[in-house]
Amino acid sequence: MTQNLSIDSNRLWASILETAAFGATAKGGIRRLALSAEDAQVRAWFRSACEAIGCSVQIDSMGSMFARRPGRNPALAPIAIGSHLDTQPTGGKFDGVIGVLAGLEVLRRLHEAGIETEAPIELINWTNEEGARFAPAMLASGAFAGVFTEEYGHSRTDRDGIRFDDAMDAIAARGTAPLGHRLSAHFELHIEQGPILEEEGKTIGVVSGVQAIRWYEVTLSGSDGHAGATPMRLRRDALLGTARVIEAVNRIARAHAPDAVGTVGLIESKPNSRNVVPGDVFFSIDLRHPDDAVLAEMDISLRDAVAEIAAADGLGLALEQTWLSPAVHFDADCRARIAEAADAYGYGHRAIVSGAGHDSAYIARVAPTAMIFVPCAGGLSHNEAESATQNDVAAGANVLLHAVLATDRALGA
Amino acid sequence: MTQNLSIDSNRLWASILETAAFGATAKGGIRRLALSAEDAQVRAWFRSACEAIGCSVQIDSMGSMFARRPGRNPALAPIAIGSHLDTQPTGGKFDGVIGVLAGLEVLRRLHEAGIETEAPIELINWTNEEGARFAPAMLASGAFAGVFTEEYGHSRTDRDGIRFDDAMDAIAARGTAPLGHRLSAHFELHIEQGPILEEEGKTIGVVSGVQAIRWYEVTLSGSDGHAGATPMRLRRDALLGTARVIEAVNRIARAHAPDAVGTVGLIESKPNSRNVVPGDVFFSIDLRHPDDAVLAEMDISLRDAVAEIAAADGLGLALEQTWLSPAVHFDADCRARIAEAADAYGYGHRAIVSGAGHDSAYIARVAPTAMIFVPCAGGLSHNEAESATQNDVAAGANVLLHAVLATDRALGA
Repeated sequence: MTQNLSIDSNRLWASILETAAFGATAKGGIRRLALSAEDAQVRAWFRSACEAIGCSVQIDSMGSMFARRPGRNPALAPIAIGSHLDTQPTGGKFDGVIGVLAGLEVLRRLHEAGIETEAPIELINWTNEEGARFAPAMLASGAFAGVFTEEYGHSRTDRDGIRFDDAMDAIAARGTAPLGHRLSAHFELHIEQGPILEEEGKTIGVVSGVQAIRWYEVTLSGSDGHAGATPMRLRRDALLGTARVIEAVNRIARAHAPDAVGTVGLIESKPNSRNVVPGDVFFSIDLRHPDDAVLAEMDISLRDAVAEIAAADGLGLALEQTWLSPAVHFDADCRARIAEAADAYGYGHRAIVSGAGHDSAYIARVAPTAMIFVPCAGGLSHNEAESATQNDVAAGANVLLHAVLATDRALGA
Repeated sequence: MTQNLSIDSNRLWASILETAAFGATAKGGIRRLALSAEDAQVRAWFRSACEAIGCSVQIDSMGSMFARRPGRNPALAPIAIGSHLDTQPTGGKFDGVIGVLAGLEVLRRLHEAGIETEAPIELINWTNEEGARFAPAMLASGAFAGVFTEEYGHSRTDRDGIRFDDAMDAIAARGTAPLGHRLSAHFELHIEQGPILEEEGKTIGVVSGVQAIRWYEVTLSGSDGHAGATPMRLRRDALLGTARVIEAVNRIARAHAPDAVGTVGLIESKPNSRNVVPGDVFFSIDLRHPDDAVLAEMDISLRDAVAEIAAADGLGLALEQTWLSPAVHFDADCRARIAEAADAYGYGHRAIVSGAGHDSAYIARVAPTAMIFVPCAGGLSHNEAESATQNDVAAGANVLLHAVLATDRALGA
């Protein structure tokens, strides 16, 4: 019977549009930073929607939400569907959101079809995936997987100095469930956030893994000086040094084309006044490559380049690698079930490497895990104009449903 | 009798330290942005100090404060001593402040010595000289001199969108005196904000004029994109383009060494998140040269470079020149009186061009004007570590006193 089951595309799409109101921006995107007032709104909506179909909702000490639909065999660890409802400061309506809401649609469909699975199904909203408010990204899924300690997670601060645990308490988002529990599998549907599926006309990406990521925080320190009266030869301009590092990051990424990427996304210059030579600049660097060894080479090139620039410009330098996420390879069985589900529907698919980090990258350390990608227009993401079609999102949700059911059958066999 | 009069160095120094408490920073500097709560404190102190020695205080519609000591001949336009009490966000204790407080010390000395001048003496605190909160700089002295209309001045907004006139009303700093009145002369004592006097061991700079200044506001617009999933070849990174403009500004200034300077002081990148390619960057450019014609050449080089960078990187470009201050040449008689006063005291002096803009640059358009520079340590200014010695500041104040008295004698002759 479950072989012919499909999700309700219109209901899924309506839930995407409904929750997009929590933090909606004028340009059609979402600003819903982790543990903000807008995040509190969507979290309340999520709990209510899950409870309405008979799920119990538990929250762990990092604020991650677990909505559980019981199975026939309580001895089996749940099959998880997880992603995140937080967004970038100028994020879109799809990144993270469709993974959670497609999971909700799967639960709703199972509920109304009266299907009892062998294992419990657990729908998860991971806290602070984006890392936009609290670095590093994927903080709560990392804590769940034992990559970070709870103390580390709680003590992260945003750029205003607010601690993660205080932000959690400010919106009553802290739960009492213990951090980490067994999962039989973890599936995550996500937009590709890149151009490949669209370019090749494929509906489904069977994600083979996630590229390795390194994050850095850099401060260059020169000397504030009057912009009119400080001769060029006497300047120690931290922003000029930063400009040179930005150029170097671009050069290093392009030297490892086509797979490498390098980005300076965050910059804060002080005192940030029109007629003062900037004496102090703080900025972030993000380097990624599918191959750990190549990323390690890029790391060396980066450190050499930054040190050289700082020395040449007479600038003080503090460079800290704040995050290293090794390359991830997803579970073969889970990937096969995704490909089979896509074949059953006749959706075109291909294997693909994720350029972005995802909660699944950490959960893969503690449970069989895989991801499903669907195309997004122009590969655009972390952007208010981020866009995916109703048909593609529905296709991804159908694949998710059947990959979960196939996993459940395997557990029951 | 007035020939042997000197200012009270200790009292002047004490007033500098006393007012430095209004907006004092942990690093020994001052943060006293125009029309802020801290500015309100120092403005109240100034009024009270002037009234205590019998001066009447008028305020014009841009908030500039005029403390007048009557002269023997009310038909004569006042001899003005003016500078500013606002500071940079991380400013020092001397920039602007010593010009106003040395003027106060001159009035105090004349008051206790019972000296009646021919012309009234007017001590002026010009509003928003720094331009750190409301661009452009020297806004109120420019309005006084007819360079800007009152409507233009009132409608300037800070980076939070607060209008100048609303900020004025928020601290009750708007006055009813008409904008602009006749001055017989305008003298301003200031720290050099450059290294020349210190390097040459001179106590007094007789300022011949102010270099020409152009300010620009630039926005580069690319596309926000996911830092992990957007291939380098598909990026339109507004911060990378900005880095290239910062490098070009530096190159253009150095191509016109040693007199040219070029600075990017203010930068705001959006969305400013670690894992998002920046789609939108706003920044300022400040170019200066003593020769209007050379600055015009630099302007052309800048526009060419920015347009080329934007085109090559596929970025949208908005570049606006927001301010042009032509080179200023100060009044020969006023300069001669400064040099004579320095000679009378035996202070070493030299002619010098101001690298910074000053209120005197605008007042020179409507009154005979000159400036007195004293050394500051390392040429450092717009910096909390800005430093000048008590002896040098006192020397500058003595020269100011006698330049004013010599001007008064000339008016009475």
